[in-house]
Amino acid sequence: MEIEKLSGVSEVKFLFEPRSVVLIGSGKIREKVGMTSPWLFENVIHNMNKFFEGKTFVLDIEGERDYDKLDDLPETPDLGVIMLPPKASIEQSERCAKIGVKALVMITGGYKAHNRRQLTGLRRKYGIRILGPNTILGVVNTVNGLNTTFERDVMPKKGNISVISQSGGVGALLLDLACFYDLGISKFAFMGEKIDINDVDLLRYFNEDPETKVICLYMEGVEKGREFVEAAREVVKKKPILALKGGVTKEAARRAKSHTASIAGSDIVFDAAFKKAGIIRVGDAEELLNAAIAFAKQPPLGGDNVAIVSNVGGPAILAADAVVKNGLKLAPLSEKTRRKIESRYLGVEATNPVDLIADARAERYSFVLDLVLSDPNVDGVLVINMLKSCFFEPEDAVAIAEIAKKHSGKPVVDVPAGGEDFTMVYQVLRDTSIPVYNLPEKAVKALKTLRAYHKSVQKAK
Amino acid sequence: MEIEKLSGVSEVKFLFEPRSVVLIGSGKIREKVGMTSPWLFENVIHNMNKFFEGKTFVLDIEGERDYDKLDDLPETPDLGVIMLPPKASIEQSERCAKIGVKALVMITGGYKAHNRRQLTGLRRKYGIRILGPNTILGVVNTVNGLNTTFERDVMPKKGNISVISQSGGVGALLLDLACFYDLGISKFAFMGEKIDINDVDLLRYFNEDPETKVICLYMEGVEKGREFVEAAREVVKKKPILALKGGVTKEAARRAKSHTASIAGSDIVFDAAFKKAGIIRVGDAEELLNAAIAFAKQPPLGGDNVAIVSNVGGPAILAADAVVKNGLKLAPLSEKTRRKIESRYLGVEATNPVDLIADARAERYSFVLDLVLSDPNVDGVLVINMLKSCFFEPEDAVAIAEIAKKHSGKPVVDVPAGGEDFTMVYQVLRDTSIPVYNLPEKAVKALKTLRAYHKSVQKAK
Repeated sequence: MEIEKLSGVSEVKFLFEPRSVVLIGSGKIREKVGMTSPWLFENVIHNMNKFFEGKTFVLDIEGERDYDKLDDLPETPDLGVIMLPPKASIEQSERCAKIGVKALVMITGGYKAHNRRQLTGLRRKYGIRILGPNTILGVVNTVNGLNTTFERDVMPKKGNISVISQSGGVGALLLDLACFYDLGISKFAFMGEKIDINDVDLLRYFNEDPETKVICLYMEGVEKGREFVEAAREVVKKKPILALKGGVTKEAARRAKSHTASIAGSDIVFDAAFKKAGIIRVGDAEELLNAAIAFAKQPPLGGDNVAIVSNVGGPAILAADAVVKNGLKLAPLSEKTRRKIESRYLGVEATNPVDLIADARAERYSFVLDLVLSDPNVDGVLVINMLKSCFFEPEDAVAIAEIAKKHSGKPVVDVPAGGEDFTMVYQVLRDTSIPVYNLPEKAVKALKTLRAYHKSVQKAK
Repeated sequence: MEIEKLSGVSEVKFLFEPRSVVLIGSGKIREKVGMTSPWLFENVIHNMNKFFEGKTFVLDIEGERDYDKLDDLPETPDLGVIMLPPKASIEQSERCAKIGVKALVMITGGYKAHNRRQLTGLRRKYGIRILGPNTILGVVNTVNGLNTTFERDVMPKKGNISVISQSGGVGALLLDLACFYDLGISKFAFMGEKIDINDVDLLRYFNEDPETKVICLYMEGVEKGREFVEAAREVVKKKPILALKGGVTKEAARRAKSHTASIAGSDIVFDAAFKKAGIIRVGDAEELLNAAIAFAKQPPLGGDNVAIVSNVGGPAILAADAVVKNGLKLAPLSEKTRRKIESRYLGVEATNPVDLIADARAERYSFVLDLVLSDPNVDGVLVINMLKSCFFEPEDAVAIAEIAKKHSGKPVVDVPAGGEDFTMVYQVLRDTSIPVYNLPEKAVKALKTLRAYHKSVQKAK
């Protein structure tokens, strides 16, 4: 029984799917190091009351809240969220463990080695699962509204992307980007110091989670490298894992060591481990989410051949450059496809990149995109539809989503290149299945990850 | 006289600084290839009337406008802007040349070889300077409001960045980004087919232009390589040139050839030429403007040593990674600086990256930034100030601008990492001298260009 608890993922699910939650903090204690503050406590209460569909109990250890003691609660909560300095946190954790709380989220930090040992002791003695300490933002689950962040009213849209972040700061950055661009999120987990629940536990949970289609990982270090690689390999058979690695340089690694108490491994070792595990590595936070949204919305790229369909010349050239630089190929369109396009539209050149000319509207995009996606020489399509210097209107973009749906086996990504152009077209497409990027280079990088995943799944077969 | 006209930059200035302009088009003719359209004509008229401080005459060749013929104009305009199909364009160009118009902007395209020869003939016979044809958007000058684009009401803010784009589409993308992020622009020139005015002419003009502090260049090909390199070398002594090169890959180059009728040279040759000229090459349109805004606002980076001052751990680690990956160094802070910081703030670690902890507000940023910028071991500073997961408020960012002003010899860049965080802090800082980026990696790339320019100027001495 004890062993089963230690090894299984069963308790991890209470981290995301508790029926009831107790928030344990103080309306008085303020500690700079470790971030205990009444304001933080207040905001977590606010978010949980606003979003969480289950029951939320509030326990103020100073005794001025709904409940003074755990014993007073009308039922035993599945999850405890603790926002107190180390000593008080540990006391409350032990009480939680004793009454049968299944999992804990330790928001606050400031733990010393002996504090960590005490927490690990509880884990061993009671089988209780612990996230953190120093997770800062804890967990988010858009399915049931669980939200232990202290960012008032910040809640991402429901979707299929799940995020694991070792760092609260990078997690907050990803959460902010996800909300700002209204990306569909399933779950967020901020791991902090990983004294118990780690990447492996979370990967295994997300592997079984029907709401998770793609997993984003920000990591600085990993404890049990072999176990991590094995768990990831298993997951990658079903779902892509995208990783951003922090602390890759020697100087940066030195700093990472002090930040969340894990040793950043040599970057070369990580690179090899990621490759072995079939994890797709990305360059920054934007690339991570840009790739994730592609996986959430489109199928993997089954071959190297990409067609570019554009209403402008220069940006199509930049897209073509990016295709080749990223190890993909410019699809040679079949003679039949070319003839059909060129015979219908005067002046349109149907060599890849296909130049639809600046006055192209929905009709021309539909007709050409349908032909190009039907061409056996084409594995995926990058569409460029600029408004500036062109006649394209934002609502014309609907046609792209409609045609793409007809050819659901081949990925289509869209680039209304620019600032205002991107914003206007994104408003039209963001709730469709088309990923939208503001530069051709970013769209190609996303396609590259769709290709990498297809290859790694093929290899594993 | 004839030769002087052919070689000097004197006439190019009429492209940007005409006292009066005649817009020549038609309210009836519509041609898909080449983009002649009454709508386009109407919008250019609208923009010129709205923004241009000089005189604007409108000549409709169908005779339903203010003026029917050039001879009817009350004065000879310095600049003619022509929006007609090739044959009519050339007729009107010749009439302009005959009455003494100094320069022409040929908006429309669709030119065949013999059309181009006719235009070149006018250039030779009359000394008139010609931009285009097929410039699509023509020219923008924020100083006098000249705006021949057909993007209704699109006008960037006044500033010190000038942009030369061979492609209308990439130019439109840059214009859109500049307006969306409210970047300070001096001039835009869309070159199109370059039958006369080319990169060299424009570089020489911008070199003398007191409103231009940094030049952005999008190019696909260049005709006279040696002349270009020599002209650029001269400019770079006074002002940085940033270049985005399109058509770098073989496949992309094939396409570039048909797009604006210039042959994209081998990428290796370009790379060598850029290096020889001291031109700083960037990877995409965003990097181009991100670097430009750094040059417009901050001094070059005089050494490799960068300090990172942050209120979050993980993003600071990503910044440190980027510093080292981009060939810069993490500045070793002096013992004195570290002691002063650590003795004042409990829990703050003053090793680089300096972790100010999540509750840092303006006071702590001011105090630490002032010390770090005073440290002789530090050549420039990357500041990270996140709102999410922290106590920082957008208005606290004013303090960063104030302290940076005290140390004007060392560049400071700011990263409120994320989407909403970036937007909120950017509203506070965009009219200050601090460049703001939404990811640490982007800020470091900008610092890298500030370093590259400093090195290339030192080398030239």
